Amino acid sequence: MVDLKALRLKNITLAKKLVRESVSPDLFIINAVNNVEDLQRVQNSLGKRLREWYSLYFPELDKRISNNEEYISHLLKGDKAALLKEFNVSDGMGADLKGPELDEIKELATSIRSLYDEERRLVGYLEKTMKEYCPNTAAVAGGLIGAKLLRGAGSLKKLAMMRSSTIQLIGAEKALFRHIRTGARPPKYGYLLQHLLVQKAGKDTRGKIARALADKIFIAARIDYFKGEFKGDELLKEVEVKLENENRKTQ
Amino acid sequence: MVDLKALRLKNITLAKKLVRESVSPDLFIINAVNNVEDLQRVQNSLGKRLREWYSLYFPELDKRISNNEEYISHLLKGDKAALLKEFNVSDGMGADLKGPELDEIKELATSIRSLYDEERRLVGYLEKTMKEYCPNTAAVAGGLIGAKLLRGAGSLKKLAMMRSSTIQLIGAEKALFRHIRTGARPPKYGYLLQHLLVQKAGKDTRGKIARALADKIFIAARIDYFKGEFKGDELLKEVEVKLENENRKTQ
Repeated sequence: MVDLKALRLKNITLAKKLVRESVSPDLFIINAVNNVEDLQRVQNSLGKRLREWYSLYFPELDKRISNNEEYISHLLKGDKAALLKEFNVSDGMGADLKGPELDEIKELATSIRSLYDEERRLVGYLEKTMKEYCPNTAAVAGGLIGAKLLRGAGSLKKLAMMRSSTIQLIGAEKALFRHIRTGARPPKYGYLLQHLLVQKAGKDTRGKIARALADKIFIAARIDYFKGEFKGDELLKEVEVKLENENRKTQ
Repeated sequence: MVDLKALRLKNITLAKKLVRESVSPDLFIINAVNNVEDLQRVQNSLGKRLREWYSLYFPELDKRISNNEEYISHLLKGDKAALLKEFNVSDGMGADLKGPELDEIKELATSIRSLYDEERRLVGYLEKTMKEYCPNTAAVAGGLIGAKLLRGAGSLKKLAMMRSSTIQLIGAEKALFRHIRTGARPPKYGYLLQHLLVQKAGKDTRGKIARALADKIFIAARIDYFKGEFKGDELLKEVEVKLENENRKTQ
C-alpha cells in the first residue's frame, strides 16, 4: 500500500521548494519599480502639505521654486531674512512663526528629503540589477524605463516574446483601450515617451523614434533572455543615427 | 489732488499686514492634523509595498504580524533563522535573497519607521498646541480628536459657535449626506467614535455617550474661545459618570 501521508508530505516539501525557487530577479525588479513610483507619489503628496504649511511663514517661496527638493533645501537653510533678500521680496506677507512651529515644519521637510534619498538609492539599485540581469535592454531603454517595460510585460521572458509594436505601447494601456473603445487617436508611445531620445525628437518624429526604440528593445530583450552577447550600445547607436537623420530632414 | 499711487502703496502695505496677522494657531493645528493623516496614509501604502517585497524572502511573517511597526522592527532584527524559530516555521517558503536585495528592503523599512517617528512627534506637538490654545476642548475631546473637530469646524471660533448636535457629527459628513439623500440611517458619531469613552461604551450606548461628549465639548469650546477658567477635567468626569451609569443599567 502506498503511504499516502508520506507522499503528501513529500509533495508539500517539493511545492515549497518550487515556490522558493520561483523567486526570480524579475520580482525584485518589479517590486523596486513599484516602490520607486510609490515613493514619488508620497513625495508629491507630502511635499504639497509642506508647501501649504510653510506658506504661512513664507508664502512667496512657493511660486518661486517649483521643484520640491530645491524648495526643501531652501527651507532647511532656514534664514528667512537671507531668503527674502535672495528672492528679492521687500515686504513679505508671511506670519512670524515661533520656534516650535518652525521646528515641526523642518522635521517634516527632513523626512521628505530622506524619502528622496531613498528613491535615489532604489533607482541606483534598480539600474545595477537591470544591468546584470538584462544588460542589452538596460542599455537601449535605460535602467528605469527598461524596468517599467519589464513590469508591464510581467517578466523578461514575456518581454522577450512580445512583438515590438506591443513593447512600444507598454505604459499606454489606458490610451490604447480608449482608442479601441471610442475610436480616439491611438497612442504612439507608453513609457518610451520618457526616453531621452524620444524627448529629444521633434513632436512629429517622436512616434517614429519610439517605434525604432521598440524595435531595438525587442532585439535586446531576446538577446538578454537567451543569454547572447552584449550588443546594447550598437543597438542604441542605430536609434541615435536615425534620430539625427530625422532631425536633418525636418530642418 | 490725492496722491493715488501713495494711497495704493499704503493699501497694499496694510493688506499685507492683515494677511500676516491672520495666521492663527487654528491654521497650525489644521495643518498638523492634515499632516498626521497624510503620514498615516503614506505609512500604510509604503508598508503594503514593504510586506509584498519582504514576503519574497519570508512570506510567513506577513500573516503573523498585522501591525506595520511591529513588522518593521522584526524585519530589521534581520536574523531569519531566529525569526523562523520564533514563529515556529519549520520549512519556510521564502527565497534566499542576496545581501544587496535585503539591504534595499531594510533601507525601505528604515524610511518607513522614520515616518512613524515623525508622526509621533507631530502628534506630540499637536497635543501640546491644543493644550495651550484650547485646554478645555483638549481635555474633554483629547488632543488629536479635538484638533480634528477644530479642523472640521474651520476654527476654534466656529467650533465655539456650533450646536452640540453638529459637533457630534463632525467627521461623519458622508454618512450624514447619505442619510439626507437616501434616507439611510443617520450617523450617531463622527470623529468622536475614536474617543476612548465611546470605545468603552457598549454598542447600544455609544450614541448616547457621543452625545454627552458633544454636549461637553460644546461648553468647553465656548470656555476656550472666551478665555474662561479651566473646567475641562470636570466636564470629562461628568461624561465618565454617565458612562458608568449606562453600563450599570445594561448589566
